[in-house]
Amino acid sequence: MSPADRPAATARPAPSPDVLERMRAIVGPRGWRDDPAMMAPHLKEWRGLWTGHTPAVVMPGSTDEVAAVVGLAAEAGIAIIPQGGNTGLVGGGVPSEDGTELLVSLARMNRIRDIDPAGGSMIAEAGCILADVQTAAAEAGRLFPLSLASEGSARIGGLISTNAGGVHVLRYGSMRDLVLGLEVVLPDGRIWHGLRRLRKDNTGYALRHLFAGAEGTLGIITAAALTLAPMPRHRAAAFVALPSADAALDLFARARDHAGDLLEAFELINAMPLGFALRHLPGMMHPLPSADGPWFVLIELAGPIPLDDLLEDLLAEALEAGMVEDAALARSEAQRHGFWSLREGLSEAQKHEGASIKHDVSVPVSDVPALITRGTALVLSIVPGARLCPFGHMGDGNIHFNVSRPLDMSDQDFLARWDEIAHAVHDLVAELGGSFSAEHGVGRLKTADLRRYRSAVEVGLMERLKQVIDPAGIMSPGRVLDRG
Amino acid sequence: MSPADRPAATARPAPSPDVLERMRAIVGPRGWRDDPAMMAPHLKEWRGLWTGHTPAVVMPGSTDEVAAVVGLAAEAGIAIIPQGGNTGLVGGGVPSEDGTELLVSLARMNRIRDIDPAGGSMIAEAGCILADVQTAAAEAGRLFPLSLASEGSARIGGLISTNAGGVHVLRYGSMRDLVLGLEVVLPDGRIWHGLRRLRKDNTGYALRHLFAGAEGTLGIITAAALTLAPMPRHRAAAFVALPSADAALDLFARARDHAGDLLEAFELINAMPLGFALRHLPGMMHPLPSADGPWFVLIELAGPIPLDDLLEDLLAEALEAGMVEDAALARSEAQRHGFWSLREGLSEAQKHEGASIKHDVSVPVSDVPALITRGTALVLSIVPGARLCPFGHMGDGNIHFNVSRPLDMSDQDFLARWDEIAHAVHDLVAELGGSFSAEHGVGRLKTADLRRYRSAVEVGLMERLKQVIDPAGIMSPGRVLDRG
Repeated sequence: MSPADRPAATARPAPSPDVLERMRAIVGPRGWRDDPAMMAPHLKEWRGLWTGHTPAVVMPGSTDEVAAVVGLAAEAGIAIIPQGGNTGLVGGGVPSEDGTELLVSLARMNRIRDIDPAGGSMIAEAGCILADVQTAAAEAGRLFPLSLASEGSARIGGLISTNAGGVHVLRYGSMRDLVLGLEVVLPDGRIWHGLRRLRKDNTGYALRHLFAGAEGTLGIITAAALTLAPMPRHRAAAFVALPSADAALDLFARARDHAGDLLEAFELINAMPLGFALRHLPGMMHPLPSADGPWFVLIELAGPIPLDDLLEDLLAEALEAGMVEDAALARSEAQRHGFWSLREGLSEAQKHEGASIKHDVSVPVSDVPALITRGTALVLSIVPGARLCPFGHMGDGNIHFNVSRPLDMSDQDFLARWDEIAHAVHDLVAELGGSFSAEHGVGRLKTADLRRYRSAVEVGLMERLKQVIDPAGIMSPGRVLDRG
Repeated sequence: MSPADRPAATARPAPSPDVLERMRAIVGPRGWRDDPAMMAPHLKEWRGLWTGHTPAVVMPGSTDEVAAVVGLAAEAGIAIIPQGGNTGLVGGGVPSEDGTELLVSLARMNRIRDIDPAGGSMIAEAGCILADVQTAAAEAGRLFPLSLASEGSARIGGLISTNAGGVHVLRYGSMRDLVLGLEVVLPDGRIWHGLRRLRKDNTGYALRHLFAGAEGTLGIITAAALTLAPMPRHRAAAFVALPSADAALDLFARARDHAGDLLEAFELINAMPLGFALRHLPGMMHPLPSADGPWFVLIELAGPIPLDDLLEDLLAEALEAGMVEDAALARSEAQRHGFWSLREGLSEAQKHEGASIKHDVSVPVSDVPALITRGTALVLSIVPGARLCPFGHMGDGNIHFNVSRPLDMSDQDFLARWDEIAHAVHDLVAELGGSFSAEHGVGRLKTADLRRYRSAVEVGLMERLKQVIDPAGIMSPGRVLDRG
C-alpha cells in the first residue's frame, strides 16, 4: 500500500461557518487565505505523496493571535495542523484529505526578535526561514549551525517540531540541541513563556525537549531562543573515493582521531545517486571523474585556524593505508561549494528517475556498513533491478537508504511494493538497534512503524503524555500516534 | 528559615515489616543494609543541611531487582528515594526525617556493559562512578567529557537525574546532552528499554529528556547509553588576572572569536574564594602571586593540534588591549593540574570559613557582570560584612554566587538570614531572565523557588507530567514539585 492510499487520520467535524468567521476576525484579512490557488502550496506535500484539504489557511501575525486561534479551536473541538515551510517528508504538516483540519501557518511570524553575539544567543519567531537565521547570525559574527538542503524554505518552528538534523549534527547536534528556550501555545490556548536564553537551567522537567520533536502534536511553537556558535574562520573540504562502506567507516574513525571536533561533516555518497545528480542537475561537476568509487565521502573540517594541512595529512595517511582510492581537496571556496551542491542535490536529483521509496534510518555508527550491505541484498531480493541510492550522514549513523524504481518498472508497480520493502529495511534496522526515522520524524507516514518497532511501554508513555498535554486531541491528531 | 528546619516532604506510612521482609528477599543479603553505621553515609547530605532516616538502604544488583523493588513499593504505596553517589546539593537524594521513605541505592549497579570506540558510545549502569567512566573511555582512546569536582564519587544515574554540569558544558553541553538512550524503571515497576545508542532518532517524544533532570521523581534510571567524544591530544591552559567581571566578559567574547570551539573551559574566580583555597587546602600555589585581581579566569583550550601558540596570541592581544592584568601559561601538565586543583577546591575550601549560603544561578552570559555587581550590593545591604565568594562557569552564564558568613557572626545567625538573602539574589536573577538553579536542581531545597519564579502554566505542565507518569506519587515525593 502506498502512503497516499492510507486513510485520513481523523474523523472530526469540519469547522462551522460561524467558527471560521470568528477565526477570520482574530487574524484579519492579511492572516486569512481561502482562495484555492493561494492555499495550494500549503496543501501539497513536497514529494507529492499527500494533498490535503482545509477550509482556510490561517496565518496569525503574533503569539497572541496564535493563542486566540488555538483557544477557539479548543472551544469548538476543531483539529489544527501547524505548518512551517511545508518541507516535511512524513506528512506531518499537511492537513488530511477530508477537509476537517484547519491549517495554521506560522509563516507571517518571521521576526528575529533579538540577537546577542557576545552571549551567543538569538530569539527567532517560528516562521523565520532557516537561511535568514543563518544570515542574521553571520552578520553578527556568529554561526547558527543547523544546515540542510531545504534551508531556503524550512522555518524554525517546523525545524524544532521535527528536531531537524542535516549535515552538521556530527559537530553541533540536532535542532533540539540548539534550542535554549521556547514560547509555545498549548492546546488549550494558553501560552507557555519559556524563552529563557540560558545555557544551564535545572529547574524541573525539560519542557522544551517535550515540544521539540513533538511534530505539532502537543502545541504550537511560536518562538525560540537559539544558541549561536563561534563562526569558524577556516574550512577545508575534500571529496574522497573509496572502495567500500567499510573503508568509509575506517576513514571516519581515523578522521575523528586526527581532527577531533574540528571534523564538521562526514557525508557518505554512493555512486548511483551521485550519477543522478551529475545527470539531472545543471552545472554539476564530478570532483573525481576518473575514480571508480563506488563510494564517495565529502569530508569537511572547520575551525579557528587554517585546516588544509591537517586535512591533507589525514588524506595522505589514508591513501598510504590503502583506505582511500583518490581524493580531491577543495582549492577554492567555489570548489568547496561545488562539492556541497552535489551533496545537497542528491535528493532533488532522484525525483528525475521516477518513483522512489526512501528510508530515513539510523544505526549505531559502527553498523553503517552492515546496514548498507544487508539492506541492499534485501531490497534486491524483493525488487530485482531496484536502484539503490544510499547516502547520508555517516558520522551520525544516519543513512538515507533510498531506492529508485527499476528502469523497466512503472512508478505505480514500484510504489505498490512500499510496505514490503520498508518492512524489510526497517526490520533490519531494528535488528541492528537502529531507528526507522532518524531525521524526518513520524508524521502520518510512520505511525504504524512506531507501534511496530517501539515497545508497548514506550508507546504507552507517549500516549499518556499526549493525553495529558492535549486531552481533547485537537493538535495534529493522528500524527506521531495513530490513536489520539 | 534554614533549609534544615523545613518540614519533611511527605506524610506517608512507613513500610510494614512484611513489606520490608519481601524487599529484602528481592535483593538478598548483599543488597540490604539496615545497620545504622552502614546506613549513615547514605543519609547525610553533603553540606550537612539534612540528615534523613530510612528503614533500610536497598541496593539492587540488577535492573530486574530494581523493577521488583519498585513494583512492590507501588503495590504497598511506599515512597522511594533513589540515590547515586549522594553528592547532590539540594536534598534530592536523602530520605526525609520521618523514616517513611525507602532509600534505593544504585551503587551496586556499577558495570560498564559495553564500549564502542569507533562508534563513539558506551553503555554504563547507573551506579558507575563518573571517574571510572572517564577512565574507561580514555582507555578506549575516547573522551567522556563531563567533568566536575565530585567526579570521584558522583554516579552516572544521579548525574543524569540532575542533568549535571561542570567545567566542560561550554564545549560539550550538560549531562543530558551526552545521553543517547536510557533504561528506566517506571513508577509502576515496568522497565522502559530505551538504551539506543543512536545519534539521531526522531521517533516520537524524547523520553530520555523527560527522565534526565527529573531528579528521580519520574522513575529510576538504571543504565544509560552515553556518547563519547574524540580525545583531545593537546591542551593549553592559562590563569589570568583581571580588574573586573566586565573585563572577563570581554575576554570571553574575544576567546570565543579567537579559539572558536577549541575553547573548552572558561572559569571565573573571585579573589575571596581563591584566598580560602590557598589558605585551607594543602599544596595549593597561587599561579599569579603578585597580581591584584580581584578577578581571575582559568581558561583552557583543547583539540587535536598544539594550542600553546593560539592561547599565547590570545593573551598577548588581551594584555595589549588592557583587558588583562597578568597571565600565567601552564608550562607543564603538573602546572595545568595545579590550576584545576585550585578551581576544584573552591567549594571544599569554603567549608573552612563557617556557614555559607550558596546560589547556583545562571543568567544570559552577557549579564554575568550585572549579576555580580548588583548581587554583591544586595547581599551586603542585608548582611554587612558578608564575604562574597562568586566563582563559576562564566561561559555558561552559571555563577556559584556563594556567600560566607561575616567573620564576626555565628553560623546560626547567618543561616537565619537564608531566605532573605536567597530571595534577594533570586529576584535579581529572575529580573535578568536567569535561573535560580543552574546546575544543582530543585530537590527539596528549591521547591518554593520553582513555584515563585516559574509561571503557573509552567509549573502546571510539570505537575501534569508528574501526575501522568507517577500517579501514585511514590517516586521522590515532594522533590522538584512540593505537591505530588
